[in-house]
Amino acid sequence: MKLTKKNLEQRLDHLYDAIIVGGGAGGLSAAIYLQRYGLSCLVVEKGRGRSFWMQELHNYLGLPPTTPGRVLLNHGTEHMLELGGDYLRGYVEAVEDEGDTFAVRVKVGKVDSVYPVFRTKYLVAASGIIDHLPQLENMQNVYEFAGYTLHVCMICDGYEMMDRKCGLFVNTESAINTAFVLNWFTPYITVFTQGACEVSPEMRQKLADHGYPLMEAPIKRFLGEHHEMTGVELTDGQVIPLETGLVAMGSHYFSEYLQGLNLEWKGNNLATDSMCRTSHPRIFAVGDLKEGLNQVSIAVADGTLAATAIWRDIRRASPPRRWEENLSQPMGVVL
Amino acid sequence: MKLTKKNLEQRLDHLYDAIIVGGGAGGLSAAIYLQRYGLSCLVVEKGRGRSFWMQELHNYLGLPPTTPGRVLLNHGTEHMLELGGDYLRGYVEAVEDEGDTFAVRVKVGKVDSVYPVFRTKYLVAASGIIDHLPQLENMQNVYEFAGYTLHVCMICDGYEMMDRKCGLFVNTESAINTAFVLNWFTPYITVFTQGACEVSPEMRQKLADHGYPLMEAPIKRFLGEHHEMTGVELTDGQVIPLETGLVAMGSHYFSEYLQGLNLEWKGNNLATDSMCRTSHPRIFAVGDLKEGLNQVSIAVADGTLAATAIWRDIRRASPPRRWEENLSQPMGVVL
Repeated sequence: MKLTKKNLEQRLDHLYDAIIVGGGAGGLSAAIYLQRYGLSCLVVEKGRGRSFWMQELHNYLGLPPTTPGRVLLNHGTEHMLELGGDYLRGYVEAVEDEGDTFAVRVKVGKVDSVYPVFRTKYLVAASGIIDHLPQLENMQNVYEFAGYTLHVCMICDGYEMMDRKCGLFVNTESAINTAFVLNWFTPYITVFTQGACEVSPEMRQKLADHGYPLMEAPIKRFLGEHHEMTGVELTDGQVIPLETGLVAMGSHYFSEYLQGLNLEWKGNNLATDSMCRTSHPRIFAVGDLKEGLNQVSIAVADGTLAATAIWRDIRRASPPRRWEENLSQPMGVVL
Repeated sequence: MKLTKKNLEQRLDHLYDAIIVGGGAGGLSAAIYLQRYGLSCLVVEKGRGRSFWMQELHNYLGLPPTTPGRVLLNHGTEHMLELGGDYLRGYVEAVEDEGDTFAVRVKVGKVDSVYPVFRTKYLVAASGIIDHLPQLENMQNVYEFAGYTLHVCMICDGYEMMDRKCGLFVNTESAINTAFVLNWFTPYITVFTQGACEVSPEMRQKLADHGYPLMEAPIKRFLGEHHEMTGVELTDGQVIPLETGLVAMGSHYFSEYLQGLNLEWKGNNLATDSMCRTSHPRIFAVGDLKEGLNQVSIAVADGTLAATAIWRDIRRASPPRRWEENLSQPMGVVL
């Protein structure tokens, strides 16, 4: 059921089989599977995650390619609630490993916040990432295009950028190398650093060899209307016509609550085995937080894998269920 | 586009980037990704695969839990066709490794068959499996319930069997062990062997210890109506009331066309790396044919992985695309 400030008290004495931090594609898929395995789970969702911002989910089998990410999330939330799962809007502040259980402290409510602590056997880290966007004084100008014609994922939206005049927005020199993958889709690339990084002579030469202009002045604003970006105006007055853009400025990883748990990381990503189990036997990681492709389809499969591994653990530790009424009967006779 | 006997000739000189054997969840997901990477692919689908028989897809994020498998397949087929992929109803009879390409021989049409040979750089084996069902004289009686209340996948449908009187239909002694996993969902299990295998004294004792009756007489027919199975009538006249059933009689693997290619197998499954690449660098395997869980969500992610690995290979082997008109301009000046 949906938990709120008003009713969450009745779950404070409950020991969940799994608490899932994050109600995106990976977390919801895990919840659906866990509930269908007859286990009890709670999804804690802070809201406005990466898939919430997807305007069109072009590459997920079974949904029309114009489906917004939030429709997928709404369907999945309804699905897990129908199966008896619990769902709470809140922010996981801390997780304490108590030995056989975890204590999960959640901040609920932006005003008059309460801080309930829930307990669980297993933890699924599904809190994902969020992409850094160019920081302008007027962020509404960025949000007007982000997710529409200003993309953050080449695998998802390279197809939409095919042979179009494309801005590549970076904040490190290494991210400029994205241009030499992006050029599979379009060679009409202009690189924008906003002066956020030094660019070596070698990189300048490489860009020149490919014919990709480099713009280092800060961005004043994106141009266009109705979510259709048509260019960029720089603070030095230049106007660069564009038809689309790719932001490659890194991501924020929502993993603060995991920091005390001594997990194995690979950079910012959690290292996991083939069932999405981290280096802690009762902590799993699914979706963008773990290593691998940041794709909805991968996150959904991750949820399947993590839930199945948790079910196997719990099942194997449980006593077998016998058909009691048959035990005194001779075999082969059914009442 | 949809290929048929009438128009397939125009593709006989085309070299596909990938031919995908099987238009189930894994194959269609691979096709959608490949087309969106700007690659050309052909899906060859024989029809009536495992997901075609799914009456309700209960555990796939984003679709209502009553969605039939064939709706997923229809959506995916439309999706890949809209992206410019080719699709052919036919049966892949043989694949010959020609060095840099594969020659894929397809039987098209059940009457007046033709046998075109298509060429491709990469092959995706997505042809899956089909579950063996109890063989009765009247197979319509089996199909009346199969996929409705007579299930073939415990992970998919254990939830539907929860605490219900369940028949477990097996043809080997080792498959009887399924009972000791199925009892997570229900302890009201009756095992049916139809006399197809010997049952050791140890197994008989184990079943008796759990209170699970063992029925060894052949099945005369399933009882029930409107897809609701209510029991089994045996040839010896016994009637066993049931509410649901699980068939664990193994599967047929559609892998005949791969036999000459010297691939590495793990039992009946293809061994693959984390990107679904087999031991042949240009052959990938996705879905039920490869090791792992037989779930739609896994197959869809497999398609994502295989397509992405193929794209990376082809992209890295291609010359970089330069923005020609900029090459004679001084850097930083945009026309």
